[in-house]
Parts: sequence; C-alpha cells; structure tokens
Amino acid sequence: MLQKIPSLNQLIHELSRLPGIGPKTAQRLAYFILRAPNEYVQGVRDALKAVKERIHDCPICFSFTEEEDMCHVCKDPMRAGDSLCVVEDPADIERIESSGVFRGRYHVLHGAISPLDGISPQDLKIQALLDRLEPGPDGEQVITEVILALDADLEGDTTVLYLAKILKDMNIKTSRIAHGVPIGGDIDYIDYRTLGRAIENRVQV
Amino acid sequence: MLQKIPSLNQLIHELSRLPGIGPKTAQRLAYFILRAPNEYVQGVRDALKAVKERIHDCPICFSFTEEEDMCHVCKDPMRAGDSLCVVEDPADIERIESSGVFRGRYHVLHGAISPLDGISPQDLKIQALLDRLEPGPDGEQVITEVILALDADLEGDTTVLYLAKILKDMNIKTSRIAHGVPIGGDIDYIDYRTLGRAIENRVQV
Repeated sequence: MLQKIPSLNQLIHELSRLPGIGPKTAQRLAYFILRAPNEYVQGVRDALKAVKERIHDCPICFSFTEEEDMCHVCKDPMRAGDSLCVVEDPADIERIESSGVFRGRYHVLHGAISPLDGISPQDLKIQALLDRLEPGPDGEQVITEVILALDADLEGDTTVLYLAKILKDMNIKTSRIAHGVPIGGDIDYIDYRTLGRAIENRVQV
Repeated sequence: MLQKIPSLNQLIHELSRLPGIGPKTAQRLAYFILRAPNEYVQGVRDALKAVKERIHDCPICFSFTEEEDMCHVCKDPMRAGDSLCVVEDPADIERIESSGVFRGRYHVLHGAISPLDGISPQDLKIQALLDRLEPGPDGEQVITEVILALDADLEGDTTVLYLAKILKDMNIKTSRIAHGVPIGGDIDYIDYRTLGRAIENRVQV
C-alpha cells in the first residue's frame, strides 16, 4: 500500500533520519502531518527555514545566536569577564543559566574529545578557547578562572583531563563541576560510581 | 538563553505539537536540525510540502492516494469486488495488505464512533459505506461480504456493534477480525480478557 504513495514514503524516510525517531514513529508523524491543517505544516516549514537562515555561531563563544554580531551573553556588560564556563553544546548553556548560579561568560567546544569517534582536540573550539585565555594587550590576565562543565562520560572526562593539563601550565584556576547524588535522588537508585564520587567529594555541614 | 533565539524557540514550539513529541524531544530535534546540512532540512521542507499538495482521499474508499483519480486498490481490476474490508485509518490498509490474506477492496471510516470525544456516525465515512453496499443498477448485490477490521478498543467495539446492526438488516454477510493470543505471544503475558476471548473463539485442530 504505502509504496504506492511516494510523497508519504519520502516524508517518512526524511523524518526517520531524525535522532530517536524510528520508522514506526516516523510513519505516525507522517500520518499526523497528512491530516494536520495546512497552516500548521506551513508553520513547521517556515520554522525550519528560519532556524537555518537566521541562527549562526557567536564568533566569541561559539554558542548559537540570532543577533547580528555576537550573542547576548558575550555582549552583556553586566556579566563577569574574569570567569569562563566551558561546555560541550550550546544547549548546555541554557541549563546552566536556569540554575542562576553562574554569572560569567561561556565557551562552547561543540563536542568532546573522542578518539573512538575520531574527534581530536583540533576538531573542537579548543584553540579559540586558548586564544581567549591569552593575557590582554597590557599583559594582564583577563580570564582568571575556568569552570569545565562537560558531560560526565568518557569523552567529557578525557576532555577535562586534556584541558586541565594545558590550563595548569597557563596558571589559570581550573575546576570541574561536581559529581554526586542529584537533588531529590534516592540513594537506593544511584549507581555505585556516582555514590563513590559523592562520598569522596563530601561537604562539611 | 533560549528565549534569546526566537527562531529556535519557534521551531521547538511547532515540533512539540507533534504527537508523542514532548518539549524535551522537540528541543533535541531542533538542535539536531540546527546542525544538520542545509540539504537535509530542505529535503524535509520539500517532503512536507509534497505530502500536503499531492495526497488526497480516494473518492471511492477514502484511503490516501497520490493518483489522479481513485487509489490503486480501487482501480485494480484483479481485486475481488464482492468483499469489503472496513478499517479506521488508511495506515491500517497497509498492515492488512502485508498479511497477504485479503484480496478484496477497502473502505476507510477515518475514525470510530466515540460519544466521549463527540464523534458520531455522521462524522465518519459510514454513509459512503452504505452507499457502496447498495445493489447495482440491475438490482444485484455486488458486495456480499463485509469484514470489520477495527481497533479492539471501546470505540472500535462500539462501531462494530453499530455497523453490524445496519448490515444485518441489509442482509450482508458481516464478520469482525478475531481477537486472540498474538502469534509468538507468551500466554503468561496475555491479559485475561484477550485470553478469555481466545478460549471462546477456540479453533478445532
């Protein structure tokens, strides 16, 4: 049956290339679109176009922005200019911002070092990070603290070790975000590695 | 952060209106699209447009088709014209076709009777079904058997009861597809209602 409706097949094929969308889900979405009002489908098409046309990397921190020049964080004179939070993806910035704890600036690596996937430091925005950490024209160190907020997986850990080594030589205070039991987390359900880290990093009360 | 990228927000908003796509998944998809090659995004946009422009209901069976007039099943002279399989959705036809057991024609109701959702027989393609079941110009009954292949839920059952009553008065042989243990199904995991139905409908071996 379906093979007789080429345009429906084509849509299912395109949708099933999205992450986490298998052929079954793609089929369900395609049938939904087929029944949806034209205005909705046109809205999706316009939104897809706008995202690709309007959003670009910020030339300073490499986050996404729609601003003409740099992103709103890099442009904001109220943000602390001495501390830099390094993240893997632009979406991570939003999560950290919603915590409300960090008021400095960001740097997006666009990934993490992964020898298995052939991703080396040259493939990431690491050189741009090191350029930002250079002292100012007056020889004074502008950025004095770097917080590494990378994923708690093998690639994140590898990248933390790689950057920590370089930053140590540059004499910049470097930290990584803490691992531990999530707030609201039940100790019964926490894996032993996280729990071990939570005990090692215990905080005096 | 995100609220500063309006076009990304708009895309997340549109995607989260799709069935089974929550705000988190929509955000993940939007970030994927932001990184995806322009050719892929253009392909999705073209596929969305083609589906809405090219596909329409078959005027005979109300399945979807891209053909100029009726769908390929209604057009196929090799299909038995005396038996009609009634389904809720066009996608159901594909599933039945893949079983290879039915060689007659189809009729799509586009839903099932659901008083709770305000869907009454008038909202479905039931009158069109009754029109198809009328005797031919020579007074001879063309369609002599109707198989009701509706979902095994409350709405499907209601629709089966409603149609069975009408079809009985029209003197047309009517059946519904069997409920029972799925092939490969472990009896341990089958709910008691299905199992009860499977025992009632037992088949002599």
